[in-house]
Amino acid sequence: MRIPRIDFETAKADALLVSNLPNVEYITGFDGSNALILIEDTGDVTLFTDPRYTIHAGRVFPGKVVTVKNKASLAHTALKLALKRKHRRVGFERLHLSYAEYQTISENLPLGVELVPSGGDIEKQRMVKDASELAAIRTAVNTNSSAFDAAIKKVRINMTETDLAAEIDYQQRRRGASGPAFDTIVAFGEKTALPHAHPGSIKLANNDIMLIDVGARQEGYTSDMTRMLCAGKVSTRLKQLYKAVLESQLAAIEAIREGIPAHKVDLTARSVLKTHGLDEYFVHSTGHGLGLEIHEAPSLRKKDKTPLEAGMVITVEPGVYVEGVGGIRIEDTVLVTKNGYEILTPTRKELIQL
Amino acid sequence: MRIPRIDFETAKADALLVSNLPNVEYITGFDGSNALILIEDTGDVTLFTDPRYTIHAGRVFPGKVVTVKNKASLAHTALKLALKRKHRRVGFERLHLSYAEYQTISENLPLGVELVPSGGDIEKQRMVKDASELAAIRTAVNTNSSAFDAAIKKVRINMTETDLAAEIDYQQRRRGASGPAFDTIVAFGEKTALPHAHPGSIKLANNDIMLIDVGARQEGYTSDMTRMLCAGKVSTRLKQLYKAVLESQLAAIEAIREGIPAHKVDLTARSVLKTHGLDEYFVHSTGHGLGLEIHEAPSLRKKDKTPLEAGMVITVEPGVYVEGVGGIRIEDTVLVTKNGYEILTPTRKELIQL
Repeated sequence: MRIPRIDFETAKADALLVSNLPNVEYITGFDGSNALILIEDTGDVTLFTDPRYTIHAGRVFPGKVVTVKNKASLAHTALKLALKRKHRRVGFERLHLSYAEYQTISENLPLGVELVPSGGDIEKQRMVKDASELAAIRTAVNTNSSAFDAAIKKVRINMTETDLAAEIDYQQRRRGASGPAFDTIVAFGEKTALPHAHPGSIKLANNDIMLIDVGARQEGYTSDMTRMLCAGKVSTRLKQLYKAVLESQLAAIEAIREGIPAHKVDLTARSVLKTHGLDEYFVHSTGHGLGLEIHEAPSLRKKDKTPLEAGMVITVEPGVYVEGVGGIRIEDTVLVTKNGYEILTPTRKELIQL
Repeated sequence: MRIPRIDFETAKADALLVSNLPNVEYITGFDGSNALILIEDTGDVTLFTDPRYTIHAGRVFPGKVVTVKNKASLAHTALKLALKRKHRRVGFERLHLSYAEYQTISENLPLGVELVPSGGDIEKQRMVKDASELAAIRTAVNTNSSAFDAAIKKVRINMTETDLAAEIDYQQRRRGASGPAFDTIVAFGEKTALPHAHPGSIKLANNDIMLIDVGARQEGYTSDMTRMLCAGKVSTRLKQLYKAVLESQLAAIEAIREGIPAHKVDLTARSVLKTHGLDEYFVHSTGHGLGLEIHEAPSLRKKDKTPLEAGMVITVEPGVYVEGVGGIRIEDTVLVTKNGYEILTPTRKELIQL
């Protein structure tokens, strides 16, 4: 269990209903599919779940667990407890509660309780990883890279994208991953121009470029890496693109240190690609935080001014995508440190020729 | 592309903003991670996505695609189009839009447009599968069963739950699955008493019972099956539990036919367990619809009175979980037909002894 740091004063609430499951897991260690917690301004945390999870919840969470038979009424039960404890203004996570859930809860609100749109404190707390989280992320990163190394040894001409994705996922599992952190991306040839291609039945041909974007989930935590391979000879154009993206990625990583705002790292990556006339082909953000979820705050994009802090873990993944030619993306998982950064991903970064 | 059947009159709207991604995919065929569609009462459908998906969206969706650079403003762009087309009352999916998203959209609402809480029509349409969906589900079901058969041949004493889960997922992929339809559940021994156990480092011991709950995703569609195995000799108590659950499952399937309300199937499963004094150990619903998502309507539970229709695909999965003894669940994927049902899952249903 972790102690939640909730700013009840700013939220103008005296208790907080947490329904977002990764937030519930972060605080309680409980990773079931149906749960919420009530955090009181006294620091008390109560976990609400349904009977499927009674045994499991009791084992992982040292605090109070309330089992509610009717799945729909977790929130109602939690609000009744809030009222019993004399809380009048209960915050809810506005980012995670659906409009319909909000309506339902409002309609069944115990008399005397007021709902206050709130949330974001736990996500903020989650940005900076503690020692046990960092250990889990390092494990997930190393599993991912080791699985990648093993899988690419099996690459053969005529292998399908799906076959290679299966091999990678299998090698991850063999190394202790609970599964992929997201749907593994494997794209061959011109299909690499689709930034988020699903693996399909396309077969690897001679001189094809390959894009592999893969992460493992282990001990609850995620990792994320993109590497490019080639089955033969790479065209001059793709070599140029690779060189430019690598330069962009290295410059962005070099910009990382405590205190720099997230959008500055994005700007650095983008500026390098601009000098190569490639910025228009860079159609996504430079990176994102990761942890219990594969996409967490901060986001390395124009609008995110969050100052980086030591202990944040972010991806750095510029890419360019040229229809009819192909796409290049290079991505590492990086830890922000007091004086700079530590690249967690151990995998070599040159265009891997098989 | 599918023609959406939206009841604009009941919704009191003249256009509908669809933000739920499985609904977007159902209508457009587009399966990217950031998109929404505007459905007009004229039948026009416009797809909004970001530049990462420009190429892909154009390839899969024959209708109009609008690419929006700023990821946050898809809805705003769609609402401006709605206004331009003279739609004044635009529905939004109340079940899927977060309170915060609703707030943001409300605050940036083009002058002259009103937001109307709506939604559910596409989910309703999705309950009854068309021929191409059924074909995909059959493929996913068969891949799942074939992968299961291959994987259980590799079961050995001392193998971990994680190893077996990895093997199953690998065998699915080898047969064309894009991945598991949900996190594969493999539990050994007493751990089977946790209805939704994550595979871990527990090693298979002699005479252990094994619970495997697994589904493949293929051609976008899901499948779902639970089987029990034993590595040696099964205790008399577990044999009794197995017999009772199987009786319950068969009775519930036998109750399926067009016109029967979903909750009646649940009641049937529950009644059989009651005659064995086991109903208190049956702590979840009897089943759920599946399709693009692993959990869809209808739900085979007390409160769901939806009449079953030919073409619905549902799981039937009663289970009992006794702490200190173990858990038993048996699950098939079943198609509702005019005169009854068709069990899609081909895997044999006895307690598999290895």
